[in-house]
Amino acid sequence: MNPIEHIEELGRNARSASRVLARASTRAKNDALLAIAEAIRNAQDDLQTANATDLAEGRTNGLDAAFLDRLTLNDKAITAMVDGLAQVAALPDPIGEITDLRPQPSGIRVGRMRVPLGVIGIIYEARPNVTIDAAALCLKSGNATILRGGREAIHSNTALAQCISAGLIAAGLPAHGVQVVQTTDRTAVGALITSPQWVDVIVPRGGKSLIERITREARVPVIKHLDGICHVYVDKAADLDMAVQIAFNAKTQRYAPCNTMETLLVAREIAGAFLARIGPLYLEKGVELRGCEETRTILQKVGITAIAATEDDWRTEYLAPILSIRVVEDIDAAMDHIRTYGSSHTDSIVTNHHPRAMRFLREVDSASVMVNASTRFADGFEYGLGAEIGISTDRLHARGPVGSSGASCTASTSNGACFSWARAIARERARSADSVRS
Amino acid sequence: MNPIEHIEELGRNARSASRVLARASTRAKNDALLAIAEAIRNAQDDLQTANATDLAEGRTNGLDAAFLDRLTLNDKAITAMVDGLAQVAALPDPIGEITDLRPQPSGIRVGRMRVPLGVIGIIYEARPNVTIDAAALCLKSGNATILRGGREAIHSNTALAQCISAGLIAAGLPAHGVQVVQTTDRTAVGALITSPQWVDVIVPRGGKSLIERITREARVPVIKHLDGICHVYVDKAADLDMAVQIAFNAKTQRYAPCNTMETLLVAREIAGAFLARIGPLYLEKGVELRGCEETRTILQKVGITAIAATEDDWRTEYLAPILSIRVVEDIDAAMDHIRTYGSSHTDSIVTNHHPRAMRFLREVDSASVMVNASTRFADGFEYGLGAEIGISTDRLHARGPVGSSGASCTASTSNGACFSWARAIARERARSADSVRS
Repeated sequence: MNPIEHIEELGRNARSASRVLARASTRAKNDALLAIAEAIRNAQDDLQTANATDLAEGRTNGLDAAFLDRLTLNDKAITAMVDGLAQVAALPDPIGEITDLRPQPSGIRVGRMRVPLGVIGIIYEARPNVTIDAAALCLKSGNATILRGGREAIHSNTALAQCISAGLIAAGLPAHGVQVVQTTDRTAVGALITSPQWVDVIVPRGGKSLIERITREARVPVIKHLDGICHVYVDKAADLDMAVQIAFNAKTQRYAPCNTMETLLVAREIAGAFLARIGPLYLEKGVELRGCEETRTILQKVGITAIAATEDDWRTEYLAPILSIRVVEDIDAAMDHIRTYGSSHTDSIVTNHHPRAMRFLREVDSASVMVNASTRFADGFEYGLGAEIGISTDRLHARGPVGSSGASCTASTSNGACFSWARAIARERARSADSVRS
Repeated sequence: MNPIEHIEELGRNARSASRVLARASTRAKNDALLAIAEAIRNAQDDLQTANATDLAEGRTNGLDAAFLDRLTLNDKAITAMVDGLAQVAALPDPIGEITDLRPQPSGIRVGRMRVPLGVIGIIYEARPNVTIDAAALCLKSGNATILRGGREAIHSNTALAQCISAGLIAAGLPAHGVQVVQTTDRTAVGALITSPQWVDVIVPRGGKSLIERITREARVPVIKHLDGICHVYVDKAADLDMAVQIAFNAKTQRYAPCNTMETLLVAREIAGAFLARIGPLYLEKGVELRGCEETRTILQKVGITAIAATEDDWRTEYLAPILSIRVVEDIDAAMDHIRTYGSSHTDSIVTNHHPRAMRFLREVDSASVMVNASTRFADGFEYGLGAEIGISTDRLHARGPVGSSGASCTASTSNGACFSWARAIARERARSADSVRS
């Protein structure tokens, strides 16, 4: 198969299907989601056979255990996909919603209507469940989708694509509403991301190098997120019980997600008291601590030896049980640190001092900025947006968790400005994020 | 002056000023706007002397009368700038506004806060008034700005820049909050649009070729609008009195703006009655008519000879007293025409049939979609957004009129979605847009 011709064919099909999907009724879209779920349930054996082929090839090619784990479509993974489809069907339909309809002095009424984007291209790694998650969100929001999963999952994805087509047809929607790229040739990706005539936006999901390459080469707008170097700043006016809960949760609830804290900033005035309390908790949990000189001195007093943090530590997204800690003079020093080393993903202040909380919200330039909340709350479900396919750290386009009905934290263009963006803020009282799923 | 070093210096200054402006109080920003107005009033003689130099050079270089007219800073133009500054000062401050703050099941409250974008680069033609309009909007929304006006206006813009700096300093804000590029070397534009470290978004204002070149070469996000090929579709269920008013206003209120109708689509069932009424009005106003075969036959019966429209006519933004007219079978044919030939700017349906009105709103893929309103209403002031610096036809980023507090029609990312955008809809009853200013 010629990969460029293949993308052209998919693109033409998607463009045509997108017009039908854009005006599809909520009922038809939900019927399709549930029919896809049923098709997956009925095809469980075939899916697992196709998946076994991918797994066997993966083993032959020496893929590691974690990789094979993400690639595996066991019963549990299939049930999760089926449940996910039902959840998206249960979400409100974002399309057609009219908001802010207001009379103007001229007598006209002006408002906004939410409509689909058109055709979404999603490029992701070898995780077959993403095929269904992404298809479901795009379908619910009336968009056509072209999915290009990692080549190691090609058999699984092709089998899933058949279930998706069957579901679309059963609901009377165009079978080409969701298409899976049928070639593992990388030329196809190049064609996909440089075809604004077929694709309206590209969403890359995966490692930093994938996202960087796509951003560099794309001629279609890309909604992306890169690093999540998230900070918690414990202010001198923090409730220390709350600060301990939040800082512990933000680091340890899960290590791999992008919204996990990587650097803890502590106001000098309360650093001694606070670090003496939180240090032993991290130690007990097996978190390796890397600190500035002051941090190390304080921790040493409670018998904890922290490694000396280097400049590199402040810039690192560990995604692991490692935490860097820095003592700072005040909120200005904390915000300077975040500005210098952060990745504009999610940053939180713990304080009971209202003016400083407001300054932090206003001056920290991140997609999600929080007061008295764990960074782990930066999540589409937690923000009430439903499933998300990524957290955007862009300034324009979307910002924050991106799901079928919105980026919570939205966009520069949000309430629409060219010149300002809306972003998520979250507050809570002494609450940790144990409920966060992912 | 080395243009690349110059842009670097401006960029560094702007980045630093943007941090101060982002947290500037509403009072300080308004004080600065009014102080700039006062500086302009006080410097009127100097401004006109500088402008006279530009005009003299322009005449020497053979610029045409319309060009020189746009370049001229006469008393009226200066008063308009001063008034514009006062108007922007009177607008509400968009920054810091928190919306949609809602408790979530976890107990956290999540909302959005509007914050500035950072540094805005604006590239425009030789219209000195844009220097002030753009500076005012960006300043009000807490952004730093780098302005690069047409080289034919360099003396005027340099003189205006001094007034702007004086105003900023008087209000205690950084003088580098608004900077004017001090060289006419085109290399400077290239440096400006490829420096994401200094500039967060580029807004090109001007002709299509300027915008296309910037879009092609930019490595900074560009908020742009290209053509305005706007349509009015008169449905078979239209109130013909209203249709006559709207179609006449949409074409003739002003010919040059991008929201002026260029093609009139008429449902076959009422084409005879409607064209017989509107044709003579256009004729009387001196509008040249170019029609499809059916249109020409109908107009011939009332003694009007229309030129045969060619394929090219449907694709042309005349910006002149010329209108193309096509008779179509129904709303589907009208929307097909708009999809094929439109520019996604502004399109309107005239109908009293509610289901067809809703289909048009939902299915026409344009920044502004209207029911029973003139396309001339697509304007930041008319949408209640205040001054605008352009109307975006992008799908991502902003959509529609773009001002200090929002694109009305906003963005894909509007209420935030990756997958849907909000757009303006406007309705009215039998009202034409005589009030529209620009």
